[in-house]
Amino acid sequence: MRIIRAEYQGKIFFALLHAEHATCLNKELGFSEPIALNQLRLLPAVAPSKIICMGMNYRTHAEELRFKQPALPIFFLKAPTTLICPGQNIICPAGATRLDYEGELAVVIGKTARNIALEDVPKHIFGFTCANDVTARNLQTASDVGGRCKNYDTFCPIGPWIETELPNLNNLNVVTLINGETRQKGNTADMILNPYQIVEYLSSVMTLIPGDVILTGTPAGVGPMHDGDTVTVEIEGIGQLSNTVIHPTGAVQ
Amino acid sequence: MRIIRAEYQGKIFFALLHAEHATCLNKELGFSEPIALNQLRLLPAVAPSKIICMGMNYRTHAEELRFKQPALPIFFLKAPTTLICPGQNIICPAGATRLDYEGELAVVIGKTARNIALEDVPKHIFGFTCANDVTARNLQTASDVGGRCKNYDTFCPIGPWIETELPNLNNLNVVTLINGETRQKGNTADMILNPYQIVEYLSSVMTLIPGDVILTGTPAGVGPMHDGDTVTVEIEGIGQLSNTVIHPTGAVQ
Repeated sequence: MRIIRAEYQGKIFFALLHAEHATCLNKELGFSEPIALNQLRLLPAVAPSKIICMGMNYRTHAEELRFKQPALPIFFLKAPTTLICPGQNIICPAGATRLDYEGELAVVIGKTARNIALEDVPKHIFGFTCANDVTARNLQTASDVGGRCKNYDTFCPIGPWIETELPNLNNLNVVTLINGETRQKGNTADMILNPYQIVEYLSSVMTLIPGDVILTGTPAGVGPMHDGDTVTVEIEGIGQLSNTVIHPTGAVQ
Repeated sequence: MRIIRAEYQGKIFFALLHAEHATCLNKELGFSEPIALNQLRLLPAVAPSKIICMGMNYRTHAEELRFKQPALPIFFLKAPTTLICPGQNIICPAGATRLDYEGELAVVIGKTARNIALEDVPKHIFGFTCANDVTARNLQTASDVGGRCKNYDTFCPIGPWIETELPNLNNLNVVTLINGETRQKGNTADMILNPYQIVEYLSSVMTLIPGDVILTGTPAGVGPMHDGDTVTVEIEGIGQLSNTVIHPTGAVQ
């Protein structure tokens, strides 16, 4: 099933996506008829209490940055204000001279999880989607790896929907394209911790809440997005997330 | 005014705190009579969409860690699941062999703020409170300064209330005590960016939303909390935030 989040007649709800319409899943709102897609305003597919991003989780990406494998998994948080949906613009902030894409598989939590065992992970997952962990690379420093450079508004495109059934989770191509040209082509088989292991690990640190989003790391091939570029994250079995990059004060390097 | 957040008869609301009772501020709930404090269950004073923590914002603390002053302010995020209220226990996680207190002044946002000017900051602030930026110091590494080591459940005690009027903001003692003994004694006059400058800066990065919490950094004197210790953060003009440290699997170093 493909689940979207949308606004219609002033109400915000989750909806089941069909080819040309959607059906509201929040029964209490009383929208029992199918709603044409052009009547909906699409919102970011989730409204998480936190967005957790795994760092250096693909062997090839760790190698390209010459990053020594850490003893424990690394993560940082992105603020919910970074979220945008497909078609919204990524805005390059003042001070960012290099704005990078990082295409990633995202996990959406479905059930509260704390210290769960690996075999219990699947029933705590609601679904999967595509995400772009936008990074102002020139603002990423040794003392600030996951703070400012990851947290500007619009720095977390997500979508196009949540896919609740995703076979072959550990063998999916994760591709990022700029203006239709492939720039990243990774596969989840190259992950150091696979998505279930990530959820198990994170649940040993913090309580995961329904709607929380986990970005599972990016494969090799990160690079810059220029003013006017269209960036697309495409994951097998999910779909395509596309956004345009805008640099209000001029061209990015 | 002192504002708390509490549960009463199954409802959660903000309330104005008096000496022995509180009055519900969420009028729609219909609790018009004063409520005795022992009838309320106290909750963390805010329910933020994000908790932003400034790093290295006191000159003396930067010096004690021999930290070279960065060109731009540093911040990281704590997940809302780290929040606890006064009197709740700080739980030392497995793997943490040194658990540090970091007493801090916290700002609570009152009005949506994006790219605001310094002179407009005060009207975007709801109030101030005490916070403890609990840190598993042995898990803080060069590659993970503000992620795992800052984000275990219970790692952000906050309170005891939100103080909406705080004179002398730039000349307040910020004191942390362990079992009544002073361990940190800083003053907001030693901050590199003062609280208003912090809000101005952060609003240039991200949209600040009512209820968002900003921890303004810790002064010199950080150190460990042992099993059974009571840690108190005391800020002039606000009050005292006390919590007990529990190490379920034995004594912390």
